[in-house]
Amino acid sequence: MAAGNKWMIDPDDAVMLLIDHQSGLFQLVRDIDQPTLRANAIALAKVARFCKIPTITTASVPDGPNGPLIPEIHQQNPEAVYIPRTGQVNAWDNPPWVEAIEKTGRQTLLIAGTLTSVCMAFPALSAVAAGYKVFCIVDASGNWSKMATDLTIARITQAGAMPIDTFAVLGELMKTWNRPDAMDFAAVMVGLVPPYGALMESYDKAQSVQRDGHETKLDKFEAGRAKK
Amino acid sequence: MAAGNKWMIDPDDAVMLLIDHQSGLFQLVRDIDQPTLRANAIALAKVARFCKIPTITTASVPDGPNGPLIPEIHQQNPEAVYIPRTGQVNAWDNPPWVEAIEKTGRQTLLIAGTLTSVCMAFPALSAVAAGYKVFCIVDASGNWSKMATDLTIARITQAGAMPIDTFAVLGELMKTWNRPDAMDFAAVMVGLVPPYGALMESYDKAQSVQRDGHETKLDKFEAGRAKK
Amino acid sequence: MAAGNKWMIDPDDAVMLLIDHQSGLFQLVRDIDQPTLRANAIALAKVARFCKIPTITTASVPDGPNGPLIPEIHQQNPEAVYIPRTGQVNAWDNPPWVEAIEKTGRQTLLIAGTLTSVCMAFPALSAVAAGYKVFCIVDASGNWSKMATDLTIARITQAGAMPIDTFAVLGELMKTWNRPDAMDFAAVMVGLVPPYGALMESYDKAQSVQRDGHETKLDKFEAGRAKK
Amino acid sequence: MAAGNKWMIDPDDAVMLLIDHQSGLFQLVRDIDQPTLRANAIALAKVARFCKIPTITTASVPDGPNGPLIPEIHQQNPEAVYIPRTGQVNAWDNPPWVEAIEKTGRQTLLIAGTLTSVCMAFPALSAVAAGYKVFCIVDASGNWSKMATDLTIARITQAGAMPIDTFAVLGELMKTWNRPDAMDFAAVMVGLVPPYGALMESYDKAQSVQRDGHETKLDKFEAGRAKK
Amino acid sequence: MAAGNKWMIDPDDAVMLLIDHQSGLFQLVRDIDQPTLRANAIALAKVARFCKIPTITTASVPDGPNGPLIPEIHQQNPEAVYIPRTGQVNAWDNPPWVEAIEKTGRQTLLIAGTLTSVCMAFPALSAVAAGYKVFCIVDASGNWSKMATDLTIARITQAGAMPIDTFAVLGELMKTWNRPDAMDFAAVMVGLVPPYGALMESYDKAQSVQRDGHETKLDKFEAGRAKK
Amino acid sequence: MAAGNKWMIDPDDAVMLLIDHQSGLFQLVRDIDQPTLRANAIALAKVARFCKIPTITTASVPDGPNGPLIPEIHQQNPEAVYIPRTGQVNAWDNPPWVEAIEKTGRQTLLIAGTLTSVCMAFPALSAVAAGYKVFCIVDASGNWSKMATDLTIARITQAGAMPIDTFAVLGELMKTWNRPDAMDFAAVMVGLVPPYGALMESYDKAQSVQRDGHETKLDKFEAGRAKK
Amino acid sequence: MAAGNKWMIDPDDAVMLLIDHQSGLFQLVRDIDQPTLRANAIALAKVARFCKIPTITTASVPDGPNGPLIPEIHQQNPEAVYIPRTGQVNAWDNPPWVEAIEKTGRQTLLIAGTLTSVCMAFPALSAVAAGYKVFCIVDASGNWSKMATDLTIARITQAGAMPIDTFAVLGELMKTWNRPDAMDFAAVMVGLVPPYGALMESYDKAQSVQRDGHETKLDKFEAGRAKK
Amino acid sequence: MAAGNKWMIDPDDAVMLLIDHQSGLFQLVRDIDQPTLRANAIALAKVARFCKIPTITTASVPDGPNGPLIPEIHQQNPEAVYIPRTGQVNAWDNPPWVEAIEKTGRQTLLIAGTLTSVCMAFPALSAVAAGYKVFCIVDASGNWSKMATDLTIARITQAGAMPIDTFAVLGELMKTWNRPDAMDFAAVMVGLVPPYGALMESYDKAQSVQRDGHETKLDKFEAGRAKK
Repeated sequence: MAAGNKWMIDPDDAVMLLIDHQSGLFQLVRDIDQPTLRANAIALAKVARFCKIPTITTASVPDGPNGPLIPEIHQQNPEAVYIPRTGQVNAWDNPPWVEAIEKTGRQTLLIAGTLTSVCMAFPALSAVAAGYKVFCIVDASGNWSKMATDLTIARITQAGAMPIDTFAVLGELMKTWNRPDAMDFAAVMVGLVPPYGALMESYDKAQSVQRDGHETKLDKFEAGRAKK
Repeated sequence: MAAGNKWMIDPDDAVMLLIDHQSGLFQLVRDIDQPTLRANAIALAKVARFCKIPTITTASVPDGPNGPLIPEIHQQNPEAVYIPRTGQVNAWDNPPWVEAIEKTGRQTLLIAGTLTSVCMAFPALSAVAAGYKVFCIVDASGNWSKMATDLTIARITQAGAMPIDTFAVLGELMKTWNRPDAMDFAAVMVGLVPPYGALMESYDKAQSVQRDGHETKLDKFEAGRAKK
Repeated sequence: MAAGNKWMIDPDDAVMLLIDHQSGLFQLVRDIDQPTLRANAIALAKVARFCKIPTITTASVPDGPNGPLIPEIHQQNPEAVYIPRTGQVNAWDNPPWVEAIEKTGRQTLLIAGTLTSVCMAFPALSAVAAGYKVFCIVDASGNWSKMATDLTIARITQAGAMPIDTFAVLGELMKTWNRPDAMDFAAVMVGLVPPYGALMESYDKAQSVQRDGHETKLDKFEAGRAKK
Repeated sequence: MAAGNKWMIDPDDAVMLLIDHQSGLFQLVRDIDQPTLRANAIALAKVARFCKIPTITTASVPDGPNGPLIPEIHQQNPEAVYIPRTGQVNAWDNPPWVEAIEKTGRQTLLIAGTLTSVCMAFPALSAVAAGYKVFCIVDASGNWSKMATDLTIARITQAGAMPIDTFAVLGELMKTWNRPDAMDFAAVMVGLVPPYGALMESYDKAQSVQRDGHETKLDKFEAGRAKK
Repeated sequence: MAAGNKWMIDPDDAVMLLIDHQSGLFQLVRDIDQPTLRANAIALAKVARFCKIPTITTASVPDGPNGPLIPEIHQQNPEAVYIPRTGQVNAWDNPPWVEAIEKTGRQTLLIAGTLTSVCMAFPALSAVAAGYKVFCIVDASGNWSKMATDLTIARITQAGAMPIDTFAVLGELMKTWNRPDAMDFAAVMVGLVPPYGALMESYDKAQSVQRDGHETKLDKFEAGRAKK
Repeated sequence: MAAGNKWMIDPDDAVMLLIDHQSGLFQLVRDIDQPTLRANAIALAKVARFCKIPTITTASVPDGPNGPLIPEIHQQNPEAVYIPRTGQVNAWDNPPWVEAIEKTGRQTLLIAGTLTSVCMAFPALSAVAAGYKVFCIVDASGNWSKMATDLTIARITQAGAMPIDTFAVLGELMKTWNRPDAMDFAAVMVGLVPPYGALMESYDKAQSVQRDGHETKLDKFEAGRAKK
Repeated sequence: MAAGNKWMIDPDDAVMLLIDHQSGLFQLVRDIDQPTLRANAIALAKVARFCKIPTITTASVPDGPNGPLIPEIHQQNPEAVYIPRTGQVNAWDNPPWVEAIEKTGRQTLLIAGTLTSVCMAFPALSAVAAGYKVFCIVDASGNWSKMATDLTIARITQAGAMPIDTFAVLGELMKTWNRPDAMDFAAVMVGLVPPYGALMESYDKAQSVQRDGHETKLDKFEAGRAKK
Repeated sequence: MAAGNKWMIDPDDAVMLLIDHQSGLFQLVRDIDQPTLRANAIALAKVARFCKIPTITTASVPDGPNGPLIPEIHQQNPEAVYIPRTGQVNAWDNPPWVEAIEKTGRQTLLIAGTLTSVCMAFPALSAVAAGYKVFCIVDASGNWSKMATDLTIARITQAGAMPIDTFAVLGELMKTWNRPDAMDFAAVMVGLVPPYGALMESYDKAQSVQRDGHETKLDKFEAGRAKK
């Protein structure tokens, strides 16, 4: 059993921190394509809600060129709490942010933020220094260059924060397919990895053909297949 | 005015041919990422409907491993006509397919098909030989390798078919932003080019800030900005 | 029907020319990965045999560092005829080669050769000048650089030879799935596009599950799925 | 001698864990090409058998869209033991899996799994926490994105698991070319690194030319070569 | 002398058309990096002015999310004429645009536009049909995908428009270094190809060292260099 | 609050070391494009000045082919001190360099240097050994190959130096948008990430449209938009 | 026999034009790596000499930042004639250049020049207009961007010049391995495609082992190999 | 001064170990281009000799398909000692190899080997376990895939070996330009980074122009330049 493993996520101890996923900042992202980043951030909002993980958001000067938070995050996770900032680059420098986290009584922080090397990394490094167990969800963040992301992964790992991808977060929170809401998780997976949806379509079709018979008339092919 | 231009699309003379967009074949695609391909194919189905362009679909052995047609095409374009095949690799070798096209009385064919070098290219080459004006929508097709696509572009261009991308098809059919359904086209554009959605969100936010005032309290910054 | 189309292959008029697929020359290839090149060349040898297309091979100084022909070509197509050269770089400069082609009485040449810009391109350009209908199978060739291949595609297309990929050749020769040997073609396709094999495995499994029932015990998941 | 080296593999202490190499999941892989992944996974199954390393497999809901285990693994390693799961995402959460490992009495785990950031990483992190010496064979795993793999390598390394590639595993298990079954290992190497096969063909040809004489008649060239 | 060459630009017959270089549309560009695109568009505005080539600009709904024209174009080329549109996607469908071109009495059009496959390609195809000699400056355009650009290059070339890059335009307009304003052209080149600036700095430094002597004290190195 | 965090930069304890940003060495750089490197190095010079961080530069044999320091560094930061070398590869081997650092009384070194694996890495490793807290600004350095940079990041991280990107340095020094000189920082950001400038242009335009009304006449479009 | 083929090179009718291969301009090249470009240009100089093809060189302001011609060209081909320019961008605009070509009485021009889109393309387009048969050796040219090269290939092909790579030029000039100087050509090939040298080393070693026996003592391996 | 720095190389304590740089194995390399790999390995052999660093080589079954050691290593470093193996994959498992190292009395090992993940990594891990200070020169090694190299860098770093590139080794051994043999090092640098040679040519030319005057006659340009 993974419970208590210091290298893994305990859903019951986790807080989801979604920082600065803003439509203007998204235009600066060059380490991941924008639809993937957007899908990943939304997926985190959704699964946090499924798993009743407290979710806290913020934005950096959303009334300026950085643009507003993408609306899907609060649409998909209406319980998420938005904490405004008064200009701080590092969300951790904003006392209400830290207080909101402390109020949850949880010690495991799941952090995603745009730009990765700033909005994700700074709070992560502050949280490590403050004694939290920190996971950095790099592919739900988004950075101005691939090199900046490579540097950030090395930096936060060196400090003891744990790098992770969105799909792994999803898997650690879900834990098993044998749960009533497994199809909700599956739907999120299709959003993250679109070929998964095509797999499901193919699977259903193959079963319906087995059940209902073929529709294409290929007399000679079927003869050949039978012989094989 | 572009009407009559032999190098451009006349929407009133066009037929949309969507060939073999099947969930199994999609897994073989390596020249374009699968969500982009899927979005592009769906966009074509939608805009054909907006513009009342007859749309004809088909599938290659959809009851085998090639898988079913992706459902969105007929969901988004319920008037589209599905023509089953009896094993032909080249849809043009299936007489009901050619008859369905002839029945429209139109001479401009917009063709997309998975795999590009087979399901798109063969009917395109047959149609060129039959005297049609042919546009090959390569990025709504999808191929097993990038090199195969490069070869196919050269091949169909040499034969006189015109290569085109999905956004250009959209632009040629739309023709102007000054139409009542322009926002429907805009919604399709966001599906094709997701940063466009973020632009719209940022635009609306900037206007609401102008209208309603700032929410972030940045007394010193605003002073600095004012001076600049 | 595609017969008579000047832009497509008539299998009954075709000759397959496989030039200099040698184990030493393969080490020089940098425009395509070596296993893909090898698989593509072997696929052509196989389908030529299925379709009774005369196949002619040759090698450039195979007793030197260029190395021997890869053995699978003649293993898979024992009827293929090997024509030795006496040092000519351009196989077309070797009279027995041209005579072997003329003896078939066919006018459509399917050419693949390593290196693409030399061993494939030179005979193709000579054949065009001699009045043949020429297809250049670029991804069953293999070249010393990607740029050299891009240049070669432009060069042979300009001269009137038709660029094509291996899968398209396979599709044009096969023509329909409704033939007794369709599964032999399918097996070649799996060799070319390995995900196709995984699709088939998944398809068969989905059907067996439909027929024989589930093996995994997921009581809660199935409940959730049923509700969806 | 490497025995006892904490950074290397002792074949006599090793268990091979091959997790979720399923035909459906393979379609989701984007960090490595699918034929390479498949070849690497099969190579591990083979060499484990050569070296009498206990091999344990499992699958995640193989009767759903994830698809069946690829058949070659058990075909090439009939002694491998398959442990079904009842929905757990992390194989280590399945008690029979852990018991099967414990029963071997070995402490070194060689783990490959699709998807890398979930099916390989979770059991690896659990095993590290349980005190095992863990090697993660990342290129016999396969992940949904390259970035997710980069993150996973950093994560498991941080936790103390050792990242490794398939060829290195092969080399550490083989230890010397001076063994009776060296050619069996060589055959596996050709499967992993196809240019190696071409090298062998060229080597044999060069020796046969030395033994049997030249076949190409190049009187002037040989004169030139002699002078050099 | 190149005068009268149908494949080259005659500066005295040229009009520069800069279409839809807008700050919002720039965020959609993925076939070229944004600073390069911006630098190239500005370079064209500058050299057109140096060469007294009439320059005409336009924008697509600049009061919406597409954003305003980037300011540098008219700043650098104050004589450029801005022609507003009333919603037309294809600038050629706007009669004042065509009239402005006709009024110049020139027959060679140099066209750049964002997005390439729409804003550059449509007017180019219209102009070809109208009998103009058309050059498409693709790397001062900017498109939503690399594949869309490849398709557009093939499409406009097939129609008879000539593809060209920004540096080539600069070279054809400049014609010789032996002109009084050569340094103005050189300054534009540095903007296009920044390493050129570093070359100039190095050149000047090498000459100053030759003139004024060395500053670094490397007694032993100079001895070694002298011996060489 | 981040103060005292061992993983982050305290601006009041920092020294900026800009090493060997020379026009000749820049021509050797292949891990980052040259304009980006140049922009990043200049940005560091600027922000160091804004934040009153002592800045020290040096050059390696600038009177030879390595070329002169790029002039913008001292132009933008006139207080920066230039320390000549007498041939040492590692700037730390030059006693006046170390003395200049010691004289500042600060313990946090921000180091960028071309080439990364030599001019940045050697002083960084020396400084770590001397007990300094060291940040390596890799994307303001520039190296002869991408692989060399990957190796250098691993090497300096292993030794305890912290890898960082230019934008993160900027963010850690700026700390908040609520400062009078925030627009100066914003101007540097536009130099680093040019799409940010386009965002600002779009933002201002959207606000001016809200304030002053639309300029494009799109009666039908506006009707459609209103309905949406 | 290829003689008289309008799509191929007749060595007896060819002139080699090597334009602006200068050490400064080389620093601007980004479409091909600089050592490959340099090797390709030198190879052309060498083979032109082997084949007694008149070779003409020139340089663009070599006493400025563009730098001197790389010395190897005239070192390897002392018969090459250097024609200075007086500032013309297009070498064809320099009358002595055209006269030197005319004096050879040959009609086939082999052109390479740095930068490709200017120094190679302009003379090529001028020569086509003047009625010459023109080959553009794009990978012995070198350009400021990959996109510029793609555009140039399309442009010169459209005009009727033939694109070609360096290895193809070498093959068309050499024509056969059965010539006394074949080893000289082989040496040039090794310079172009370094793996070819390794192939030759391996070939010679395999033959020496066949002749002289094995040196490695692998008693068990050889037993295993023998059995295979 | 760097002496005694545990993260850097002390030339007087170093041994150079060049393992399995064989012409057959080179054909398997896919993480670095072969000429770069070859140049890097040769550079190490040369600089080891300049610095009187004991150099030890070996090869893996060089009388089989792996091929012979590339000859330049012993040509450039005649004092290097070759230690044959009797089949061991890990050179450290060959007692004469370890004895040769021990006999030098040095504790710092500089290791390069083809393939990286086997021939370089295994001896490095063995040496770390044996207490040596180990540097792994990854870009003078060469591996079968980029992913395998990434994994190997993480693996050897985790174990405490230090990753490094060839240029950094060169810089650490050279230490200063103020040495009599500095030009010998410079010549090696040109072999590693060919643009460096072009820089030197440009530098010399600029100085000769300063000394001897201009050769190009550009009366109008010079006037323009003078004004600037």
